[in-house]
Order: sequence, then C-alpha cells, then structure tokens
Amino acid sequence: MSESAATGILYLIPATIAQEPVQWSLPENVLSVIRSLDVFIVENEKTARQFLKSCNITIPQQQLTIFELNKHQGNIFEPSFFQPLLEGRNTGLLSEAGCPAVADPGSHIVAEAHRQNIQVVPLTGPSSLLLALMASGLNGQQFAFGGYLPKERTDRIAMLKKAEKDSAARNQTQIFIETPYRNNALFDDILTALSPQTKLCIAADLNAPEQYLKTMRISEWKKHKPALNKRPAVWLFLAGK
Amino acid sequence: MSESAATGILYLIPATIAQEPVQWSLPENVLSVIRSLDVFIVENEKTARQFLKSCNITIPQQQLTIFELNKHQGNIFEPSFFQPLLEGRNTGLLSEAGCPAVADPGSHIVAEAHRQNIQVVPLTGPSSLLLALMASGLNGQQFAFGGYLPKERTDRIAMLKKAEKDSAARNQTQIFIETPYRNNALFDDILTALSPQTKLCIAADLNAPEQYLKTMRISEWKKHKPALNKRPAVWLFLAGK
Repeated sequence: MSESAATGILYLIPATIAQEPVQWSLPENVLSVIRSLDVFIVENEKTARQFLKSCNITIPQQQLTIFELNKHQGNIFEPSFFQPLLEGRNTGLLSEAGCPAVADPGSHIVAEAHRQNIQVVPLTGPSSLLLALMASGLNGQQFAFGGYLPKERTDRIAMLKKAEKDSAARNQTQIFIETPYRNNALFDDILTALSPQTKLCIAADLNAPEQYLKTMRISEWKKHKPALNKRPAVWLFLAGK
Repeated sequence: MSESAATGILYLIPATIAQEPVQWSLPENVLSVIRSLDVFIVENEKTARQFLKSCNITIPQQQLTIFELNKHQGNIFEPSFFQPLLEGRNTGLLSEAGCPAVADPGSHIVAEAHRQNIQVVPLTGPSSLLLALMASGLNGQQFAFGGYLPKERTDRIAMLKKAEKDSAARNQTQIFIETPYRNNALFDDILTALSPQTKLCIAADLNAPEQYLKTMRISEWKKHKPALNKRPAVWLFLAGK
C-alpha cells in the first residue's frame, strides 16, 4: 500500500469564501504549499487564477498547468489530470470557494487518487458549513448535511418536514444550503414547514464584514424577517424540546 | 436584533489537532485575534495555556482570565463566563483540539451567546472531520456525523449496520470517531458489520507527519489490516454499488 516514491502528492486546497484577505482564512504554511505548486485541477480557470494571484504566487501564471473540471460534464475523470502526478509533480485540487469535495465538486478526483495509490494531503481552510455549525449553538455531536434543497416548493416543504423528523428522532442538526436568490422563498417555506419550537440558525456572508449569524426558535423568527436577498447563506436547524 | 455596542465579541477559536506548528493550520489573522484576547473559555486550563504559548501571545499568562468548562459537569452555563463580555471585553471560546462545539464541548456557550444577543464570530482552523471528509473521496454532498460509536460490541455492530442502511438509502457518507485505543476492535467490527462493497476511509493522525489516509472497499480492507493502535482516527463509509 505504500505510494511509489516517484509519484507526486495531491494537495486538497481550500479557497476563500467571501473574498476575505487570504491571511484571514488560509494558514501561512498552506499558502507556502500553494506557492510551491505549478499544476492545479480547478473548477473554473479564470477565478482559480485570480485566487492564485491573491495568494501572491511567484511562479508566472503562464507557466502553470491548469486542468478545468467544469469543461467535463458530470464527474468524468480525464487521465491527463494525473499525468503530472505520475511524473512526480505535486498537484493542487482547488475549490472555487471553501473546501474541495465538500458541498463542492472534486470527490471523484480524490477517489481516483486513492485507486491509483497517490498520496492525498488535505489542507486546512475555510468551510462555510463548518463555520456555520460551530457558530450555530446547535448540536455539533450529531449532524447531517443534505446539500441543496429541492427547487419545487411542495418537494422542498416535504424535505424540510422529513429532516425535522430525523432531527427530532436523532437529536441531529440538519444543515442545508440554497442558491442565494432563493433565500427569501426558502425562509418563508421554513416558517411554514417547521414547528414553532424548532431552533433555526441562519449564517450568511460568513467571513465577510457584513456577516449575519442568528439562532432563534421558529416562533421567534416569525417576528424577525432577516434581509437575506442574494446573500450566500447556510441554513441549520434542530428540532426543539 | 442588533448587538449592544458595549458588549464584546465571542470568538470561536480552533486549536491544532496533531501538535502541528500553528502556522500549518491557523491563519495569520486568526493568530492575531488570539493574541488580542485576555479572556478565554476553555476545556482544560493547562493545555489551553500551552496552546496559547505556542501562538506566541504577548500578554503575560498571569494576566489572562481563563474559565474552565471541565470543572462543571454537563453543559452547565456559569453566568460569570460572560461577565467580561457584558463589560465589553472580547472572549475566546477555545477547543482542546479542532473546532469548538463540533464533536467537542462548547455549543451550550454559543447558544447562550445567541440568547444574550452577543455577537459570535467563528474563526477558521483545522477540523479532523472536515479534513477526513475532503480526503476520503466519498460523497461530500450528503453526509452525517454520528459522534462516538457505542462501546458495547453488539450495540456497535447494530449501529454500524443501521448507518450503512442510511448510507445506501440516502447516498450519505457516514462519519464516526472512536477512542484511539479501541481502533483495532472497531476495525474488526466494521469488517464484520459492513458489506464487502461498502467503501471505508480511515483517516488517522491528520495534520501529523505520520498521517495515514486510505479509502478502499471492505472486501479490500479484509486483506490489509492497518496499524492503528492508539492513533486518533476518523472513520467514514459510504454504501457501495
């Protein structure tokens, strides 16, 4: 099971989540690793190059090898992505925002690395899910992340009710995300779907100066509609007693 | 809902997870916040002081106000913890390792801050759960953290089988932790409880030089027993197709 000495390391690189300065959310040694790399697998080349610039990389951008995931529909793995790794060049898998492969593409790349016995090293950085969970005051001993809620209102309300039932049965914090322009509609659906005693945390614009973070029971939220339009947010709830 | 200008901020401070250098897993601005504080709520005073020393704080240790959670059984909140906050002094809630309130004590402190309208600011740092999930190659779009597994073998096997059923029904990565000296027993129970097709990731000693990270199907793990005794580990699995 030992990795061949000749193959490179696949570093999993988190990116900033609110255009905050990199010193706010990326450790100095992680920035050093980023600056040492000249091969990246990214979601979008243009924004990846902007992020790398903000990390003050010293290797000229035109010397970087950048593979883009977005060009390939679904979770297709292109063998060319790993050619540099197999030649011994370390490669960075870079998220668009937050941590790669968590609520974001990239897990099929990591899975392929395991299959090919390539060493995987995850690096520390910001995750809106984790920051929101820490700051929610809800249960951090049992929790579930469900991804995006369904778009259709009836399905969404059914999903919320099912998640609340799970939450009550397992004392499990339920975590969801939503496309920012649907925040107001989701807020209304949550007030409709969940019980007055359930505790809801809304965590918006995490790591930004305008961060909004509040946990209250649904009965209290009914009196306080937050201004959430188009603000990236994480939604967490725990069935109340 | 606006916070009073007179109250301080409750910062949620992650700590290193493998005695790695702080530059490896804590951003420079997070270290600056830590160095600016003179009030902390901690799990254990002695190890908290060691961690603060490793952050090169400049305020003399004897001038720090440190409240200890461990002295108080259960999730009891002592009003004295928030006295400095109410007087306008920023306070740090510090985990023993990793992120406060996630697989660790502290969520009742955060909940109380929300109740008292005290501003909560979560800071970025290492989380063994998140690093393991990123690096597992398993599903990061749906996952559940179940905390510690039951100690008793029959209960533990039943819990593993239930989690595998959930995993199959929801395409949900299941994440657990275990006391390190029980790793070998847990490994044996996992091989007994789970289906050959299920993918298991073991992530041990994350952020340490001796990091161990491997994802394979149960059928493959049956041929490769890892040396895990007393190594802190995260266990993740996803029912296979």
